[in-house]
Amino acid sequence: MKILVTAFDPFGGEKINPSYEVLTRLNDVIEGAEIIKLQVPTAFYVSVDRAIEKIKEEKPDVVLSIGQAGGRFDITIERVAINIDDARIPDNLGQQPIDTPIDESGEPAYFSTLPIKAIVNGIREEKIPASISNSAGTYVCNHLLYGILNYIKKNKLNIKAGFIHIPYLPEQVIDKPNTPSMSIETMVKAIETAIKVIVREEKKTTM
Amino acid sequence: MKILVTAFDPFGGEKINPSYEVLTRLNDVIEGAEIIKLQVPTAFYVSVDRAIEKIKEEKPDVVLSIGQAGGRFDITIERVAINIDDARIPDNLGQQPIDTPIDESGEPAYFSTLPIKAIVNGIREEKIPASISNSAGTYVCNHLLYGILNYIKKNKLNIKAGFIHIPYLPEQVIDKPNTPSMSIETMVKAIETAIKVIVREEKKTTM
Amino acid sequence: MKILVTAFDPFGGEKINPSYEVLTRLNDVIEGAEIIKLQVPTAFYVSVDRAIEKIKEEKPDVVLSIGQAGGRFDITIERVAINIDDARIPDNLGQQPIDTPIDESGEPAYFSTLPIKAIVNGIREEKIPASISNSAGTYVCNHLLYGILNYIKKNKLNIKAGFIHIPYLPEQVIDKPNTPSMSIETMVKAIETAIKVIVREEKKTTM
Amino acid sequence: MKILVTAFDPFGGEKINPSYEVLTRLNDVIEGAEIIKLQVPTAFYVSVDRAIEKIKEEKPDVVLSIGQAGGRFDITIERVAINIDDARIPDNLGQQPIDTPIDESGEPAYFSTLPIKAIVNGIREEKIPASISNSAGTYVCNHLLYGILNYIKKNKLNIKAGFIHIPYLPEQVIDKPNTPSMSIETMVKAIETAIKVIVREEKKTTM
Repeated sequence: MKILVTAFDPFGGEKINPSYEVLTRLNDVIEGAEIIKLQVPTAFYVSVDRAIEKIKEEKPDVVLSIGQAGGRFDITIERVAINIDDARIPDNLGQQPIDTPIDESGEPAYFSTLPIKAIVNGIREEKIPASISNSAGTYVCNHLLYGILNYIKKNKLNIKAGFIHIPYLPEQVIDKPNTPSMSIETMVKAIETAIKVIVREEKKTTM
Repeated sequence: MKILVTAFDPFGGEKINPSYEVLTRLNDVIEGAEIIKLQVPTAFYVSVDRAIEKIKEEKPDVVLSIGQAGGRFDITIERVAINIDDARIPDNLGQQPIDTPIDESGEPAYFSTLPIKAIVNGIREEKIPASISNSAGTYVCNHLLYGILNYIKKNKLNIKAGFIHIPYLPEQVIDKPNTPSMSIETMVKAIETAIKVIVREEKKTTM
Repeated sequence: MKILVTAFDPFGGEKINPSYEVLTRLNDVIEGAEIIKLQVPTAFYVSVDRAIEKIKEEKPDVVLSIGQAGGRFDITIERVAINIDDARIPDNLGQQPIDTPIDESGEPAYFSTLPIKAIVNGIREEKIPASISNSAGTYVCNHLLYGILNYIKKNKLNIKAGFIHIPYLPEQVIDKPNTPSMSIETMVKAIETAIKVIVREEKKTTM
Repeated sequence: MKILVTAFDPFGGEKINPSYEVLTRLNDVIEGAEIIKLQVPTAFYVSVDRAIEKIKEEKPDVVLSIGQAGGRFDITIERVAINIDDARIPDNLGQQPIDTPIDESGEPAYFSTLPIKAIVNGIREEKIPASISNSAGTYVCNHLLYGILNYIKKNKLNIKAGFIHIPYLPEQVIDKPNTPSMSIETMVKAIETAIKVIVREEKKTTM
């Protein structure tokens, strides 16, 4: 089994992006699955293009995208991506779409095809707080998840895809009072656990 | 130099107390100072009695108490203890004093005699969020800090004392939505950094 | 112009539902539009059935649903409803669907057809905090919004529809520490402002 | 009975101070007591001087100070003032004392002499959320409360004094996401209720 894991570069004035910090620390093989790592820019459309290029090249069974959700308390597994871009701040290429459909010909929304409840339970069993999120926002994170699921659906590919949001790292909240954070070790363990669950559930389904 | 570090046992329905988890993981020597470790019960008066016994026995230069402040986001260095017990829940001995002075003959409050700002800065330099707290509450944490400072003051001892509150561990917030937590590794590093700062500042003062 | 406004009965252990408290205080005519008021039960499917009955009976131009979002800080205008029921607690009829599509033949999501950004701006101009929400959750609120938009879409009706979530009332948070609330006067003013904006925008479109 | 109520002018970039908005709306007679209203500047020392001048002039039985505590969720009745100034931002006169005792000859802290628990209960009975606060901070609010109690104590006056913090008004949080607020009507009712409780408790004591 081959799993493509994507992460973003820093945005919104941050010097690091915890998703990339986690990505570089993931093992290359988890639960027997080969892990392909890809950093994409925090940019509308370009992020999706890069992911699709890599999907064509690597033909993964699963695409798991990771992103920073500053202000959230726990690991959140996204349930759905909606067909809208609405950016509060410009992306890393200066693009700031407002109330714009991502793909006029796409569906209003796509649900994650990962086993989101099993992932939540698996992470919690490792004593790390996790929950389902019903909104990936309307910025680049939602855009990337929508773009990948839209590409898979339109091309009738047999690929599962989903998105996990992770909190700020402690060093990012030093000047942000009353803002939650999570250590890099905890976040790496959470994402590795998520991947283990995905592999196990995938094996169940395919056997 | 000898530093007595105290921590509490679990209370309020929790199965663990992060302060004790940190205590057991501290090195026995930090920055050249000998670390004496003491767990005290989460109980009014008894906690102070145990600490005083140990102070008499070990004659430390510094007493640093650690406690859990569930719901706080960062490492908080307490500035002051006030002369009041007001318990929202019973302590581990079933005591629940309401609006009761800790010591009728004590001062209304005692300020921590540790270098609280230097500790905050030292922890933040290690990329861990920390801040000053102006209230240790009115439960056993405030009680212990007040009791130790009161004992030192009344007996004119040359001992510095203070209190650091630490957040919940991740495993404690799994069923507490929107509640911040901090990993054990981060908290141990923060407390060891605090002790290093205390030792350095103490050396400055005494030279 | 005729506007059907719906609100819910209390749920989840609450004695009142602020949405119903607001509903009963709305003027019968706002900005020239006739206001039809309907309370629906906090129950999957039945809430939608009641709303559809009333839509058939009254043939409104607009359906605005209001619901309680305990824990939110401001007036939130919902952007979208998704095709899923996932109930953390049973509804008022004891139903607790888990990860169940609302309508197998419906679209994955429907976007609100109300002028959501104009409503946010209008309420903020009245000095009341308001914002867009990208998730109405997966409980009865999302269900009702989805059900109404699904009905309108499938029947090709010329009706606009949307949903506004309001915070707890002050009296609901007396025993909920660190939970935001909003006064009934403020919430009534916010909803009346939302209706004024809807009427004005609707007139612009139809002229 | 005569009650001096003080409030502050706006500070920290705010255009209004809810404490002053409440002050101007208080009845001139509450529960038979005459209400003397005084606005003081948000400034160290000068605020206390103004309050003391007015105390000398009016000889009130009670001094109740009100201040804004942005970010708090409910009406908070302060328990204690501590002998320290530590300003995160300059006051309205540009003063920014850091870790400075308010009065070298004063006590480390003074407890409010108002019936704080009875006030909390009275406000909650009016369906408004309220609680005890164990810290008035280290800015001008704590300074004023300390200054007034210090003056009363040193001059052995028979005057009760205390402090109530109130949240932001809704209009203040329009550009502050996830920040709680409270309507002016609710806050006026809460402060009038507090005064009624003070009068009733005072009458009990003095009879």
